[in-house]
Amino acid sequence: MKTTLKLAAATIAAAFVIGAAHAEEGGAAGAAPAAVAAASSQQAAQDQIRLTRVTPAYWKVTFASPPFNIVGPKEVRQLVRIVEQIEADPAVQVVVFDSAVPDYFIAHYDLLTPLEDSTGMAPGPTGMHPVPDLMVRIARLPVITIASIRGRATGIGSELALAADMRFASREKAILSQWEVGAGLVAGGGPMARLPRLVGRGRALEILVGADDIGGELAERYGYVNRALPDAELDAFVDGLARRIASFEREAIVETKKLVDVASLPPDAEMQPGWDAFIASVKRPATQARLKSLVDQGLQRKPEVERKLGARTAAYRKQ
Amino acid sequence: MKTTLKLAAATIAAAFVIGAAHAEEGGAAGAAPAAVAAASSQQAAQDQIRLTRVTPAYWKVTFASPPFNIVGPKEVRQLVRIVEQIEADPAVQVVVFDSAVPDYFIAHYDLLTPLEDSTGMAPGPTGMHPVPDLMVRIARLPVITIASIRGRATGIGSELALAADMRFASREKAILSQWEVGAGLVAGGGPMARLPRLVGRGRALEILVGADDIGGELAERYGYVNRALPDAELDAFVDGLARRIASFEREAIVETKKLVDVASLPPDAEMQPGWDAFIASVKRPATQARLKSLVDQGLQRKPEVERKLGARTAAYRKQ
Amino acid sequence: MKTTLKLAAATIAAAFVIGAAHAEEGGAAGAAPAAVAAASSQQAAQDQIRLTRVTPAYWKVTFASPPFNIVGPKEVRQLVRIVEQIEADPAVQVVVFDSAVPDYFIAHYDLLTPLEDSTGMAPGPTGMHPVPDLMVRIARLPVITIASIRGRATGIGSELALAADMRFASREKAILSQWEVGAGLVAGGGPMARLPRLVGRGRALEILVGADDIGGELAERYGYVNRALPDAELDAFVDGLARRIASFEREAIVETKKLVDVASLPPDAEMQPGWDAFIASVKRPATQARLKSLVDQGLQRKPEVERKLGARTAAYRKQ
Repeated sequence: MKTTLKLAAATIAAAFVIGAAHAEEGGAAGAAPAAVAAASSQQAAQDQIRLTRVTPAYWKVTFASPPFNIVGPKEVRQLVRIVEQIEADPAVQVVVFDSAVPDYFIAHYDLLTPLEDSTGMAPGPTGMHPVPDLMVRIARLPVITIASIRGRATGIGSELALAADMRFASREKAILSQWEVGAGLVAGGGPMARLPRLVGRGRALEILVGADDIGGELAERYGYVNRALPDAELDAFVDGLARRIASFEREAIVETKKLVDVASLPPDAEMQPGWDAFIASVKRPATQARLKSLVDQGLQRKPEVERKLGARTAAYRKQ
Repeated sequence: MKTTLKLAAATIAAAFVIGAAHAEEGGAAGAAPAAVAAASSQQAAQDQIRLTRVTPAYWKVTFASPPFNIVGPKEVRQLVRIVEQIEADPAVQVVVFDSAVPDYFIAHYDLLTPLEDSTGMAPGPTGMHPVPDLMVRIARLPVITIASIRGRATGIGSELALAADMRFASREKAILSQWEVGAGLVAGGGPMARLPRLVGRGRALEILVGADDIGGELAERYGYVNRALPDAELDAFVDGLARRIASFEREAIVETKKLVDVASLPPDAEMQPGWDAFIASVKRPATQARLKSLVDQGLQRKPEVERKLGARTAAYRKQ
Repeated sequence: MKTTLKLAAATIAAAFVIGAAHAEEGGAAGAAPAAVAAASSQQAAQDQIRLTRVTPAYWKVTFASPPFNIVGPKEVRQLVRIVEQIEADPAVQVVVFDSAVPDYFIAHYDLLTPLEDSTGMAPGPTGMHPVPDLMVRIARLPVITIASIRGRATGIGSELALAADMRFASREKAILSQWEVGAGLVAGGGPMARLPRLVGRGRALEILVGADDIGGELAERYGYVNRALPDAELDAFVDGLARRIASFEREAIVETKKLVDVASLPPDAEMQPGWDAFIASVKRPATQARLKSLVDQGLQRKPEVERKLGARTAAYRKQ
C-alpha cells in the first residue's frame, strides 16, 4: 500500500516494518496515513504550511507541522503552490519564512514515506526534480525572501534557508546543520553549490562533511546566517526589516536582486546532481543500515533524537 | 540654464524649483553656480579632492568638499584625472583614500545637478560611462588602494571604497550603506557585482535591499570592510600599512595583485548594467517622488538628514 | 657542487657564501650537506614528514623537521609520496596535517638550497611543477584533509593549509602569513587563487600584499581558518572531528566533496602562473638583496628572525 510508511522498502524490507511500527506507536510521524489522504485537500495543506498576507507587499510562509516540521513530497507540493502564488503576484515584495513549531524551523526531509513518492514526482518548470526546482525558483523569485530561523533547520530546512535571500537566526535557539553525510546520505537540495559561495570552501566542507549541529552564534561567525540575534529580538528585527523592504519600490528591488543574481547564484546545472546523488545514496545498503538505526532510536518520533541529530549520527558503529 | 540646480528636471519640473530654492537658502549644495564655474579650474578641483604625495611611493587622495563630500560629475572628472596620474606614475605603490570632512567619507552621488550633466559624459577608456569606468580602473590600478573610512560612506562613497583593494573603518564613526533602493534607485557604481563576492549573497542582499546604515563593527563582521579599528587608531594603522607596502618591491606587488584580480574581480561586463539601471531608476516618477521628499526634508543641505539617511528613506509613505 | 648551500647563486654569487657560512655556524639550516645526501634515503624522509595511520580511515601527516619545519625540494618529494599513498588507499577518509615542532607548523620554503634543485624537478601528473601540482592534488584528494595549525604557517606552510579542506588554528600560538611580497617574492603555491575565494578580495590583498603576521584570532575573523581554538583544546577538537568523519561512509564524503569542488576549487590553470611568478621573482636583484639581508640577519637559522618574519621584512631599507 502506497500510504503505508516504509523506508526505501524496495531496497531493505526491514525498514518498512520499523517505520510503520513506530508511526503507529508514536503517532508523530510526518506521513501517517490519515495525513497523507488529507494532503490532497488544499485546506489541509494550508494548515501545514501557512501563507499569510501580512500586507499586500509583505507575506509570511509559516511551517506549522508539529512536532518536527518534517518536509516530504506533500510539503514540497504545498511549497510549489505557494511559490507559484508569489511568482504570479504583482504586489508582493518580501516573504518571510518562519515556523510555528517550537524548537524546529524544519527538521529534515521525510524519510518515512515511500521513496517512489519522492522519485516519482513530475519535474518542475526548470526541468529538474521538484526539490531542486523549488530551490532554484525560490532563489530567483522577484521578491526578497528572508528565513527567520528559530529551532532546528537541518537538511532540507537548511537548504530552504540557503535558497532564501537572507537568513537571520535566534542566537540561543537556532541549530543549523547539513546532517546528511552523518547518515550516509548526500545532501540533495543544493548546499554543495550554495555554502562554498556563502561561507567559503573550508567552512562549507566542515558543515557538509562534519555534518554536525551549528548553533546560532557560530552560524553567524561562519556567515551561514546574516546575523544571530537574541531570541527575544529576532521576530521584531525580521518584521522590521521586512516592513522596511515592503515600503520600498518594487522595481528597484527586482532590478537590484537580478544583478546580484548574476554575481552570486550558482548555475542551475549544479543543483540536479546533488539531488541525484541524494537519491543514489538513500539506496545504498550502508546508508539504509544507518537510517534504520536512527529510526530504531526514534527518528521522526522522539524529540531527544531529533534535537541531538549531530550526536546521534556520530554514535553509529559500522558493522 | 545648465548651471541652475534641478533634480532630473526633464522628468519632473517641480524638482528643479525645490533643489534650486534649497541651494540658495542653505548654500551648502554640492553644485552651487559659482562652484560649477570654478570647477573648470583645475586648482579648485585639486582643492575638493586633494592629491598628496606623502612619498614617491605613497600617495593620498583626500575628499575635502564640505559639508558632505558629495560626488557628482565634477568630482568624477577630478577623480579620473587623479586615476590617470596614478596609472602613469612609475613610482607610486600605494594610495590611501580618506576624507578631510568630519562625519563624511563621501555622502553619496550629487542629486542636485542636472541629470544630463551625468548622462552626457563621454565614455572612458573601457568604453563605459565614466562612473563605472572609474570604478573598474581604480580596481585594476597597478598599485594597492586603501579606503580609510571615517564618517558616512554611502552610495558612490561605498562604491569607491568597494573598488579599492582594502577598506578599514573607524569602529565608532564609520557608517557604510548602499542607500539607493530606499530612495527608489538602483545603485550605479558596481556594488551588485562586488558585494556578493566580498560578503556573500545573503549579506550583500541585506546591504543592498535593506539599504540601511551599517556601523563599523557590523561592517567588519560582514566583511564589508577588512577591519573596524578604534577611531583613535585608524589613521596610524592605515598609515603604517601604507608605508609598509610602500617599502616593498613594486613588481612583487603588481604581479601578486594581477593574480588576485584573476581570482576575484567581477567581469567588467557586470558594471555598465548597474549604471544603466541607476539612470533608468532616477527617471521613474515613483523615484522622483521619493527624491523630492528627501530634498524637501533637506537632502544635501541638512546634516540631520544626511546623517540618518537610512531612517529617512524608511520614513517615506507611498502615495 | 650541487649540495653546497647557495641562494640563487646563478644570479648573485654573494648569497652562496652567506647561506653556506651560516649553515655551518648554526647547523640549523634545513638543507645542510649531510641532510641533502640523506634525503635520497626514504627512511630519513619518513622521519622528517611522518605518516601515521591512526586508524585505517584516519591518517596523520606530521611535519617533524626541527627547528623550523622548512619545506624544500626534498620535503616536496616526500609529500608527493605521501599524497600518492593517500590517493591509492581505499580505506582512508580523513587526513590531519600537523606539526611535531614547537612554534612552527611550516616556516616557509627552503631558500638555502640551490634554485635549480627546485626549478629542475620533473612535472607532476597534472603537468605542472611539483609544488603547484602537489597543491592541486591535495585539494582534490578523495578524502577530507584538515590542517591543525600551531605555530607559524608561512609561505608554503600557509599554502599547504589553504590546499587542505579545513583549517583549525591555535588561538594563542598560530601565526599565518604569506610573507613573500615583503621579501620581494611572489607567492608560488596558489594563495592568489585560493585566498580571495576564501576570505574575499579585500582581506586576501591585505594578507598577500601587507604580507604581515596574522594571529589565530584575526585569522578566524578573516575566514583564513575555520576556527581558532584555545591552544589547550585544539588537538582534542581536531582529533574528534577527524574521528567523526572517519566514522561516516566514504562514498557520501567523496560525492559531497566532489560537488563542493565544482563550486569552489580554483581552476588548475590559476596555479602554475603563481609558481612561475615566484621563480621569476627570486631571480630579481632587488629580491636577492632583500633575501640576502634576511639571511644575514639569520633566516632559517635564528628563531628570533623566523618568529618575527613580518617585522623583519618591513625593517629592510631600499638601497
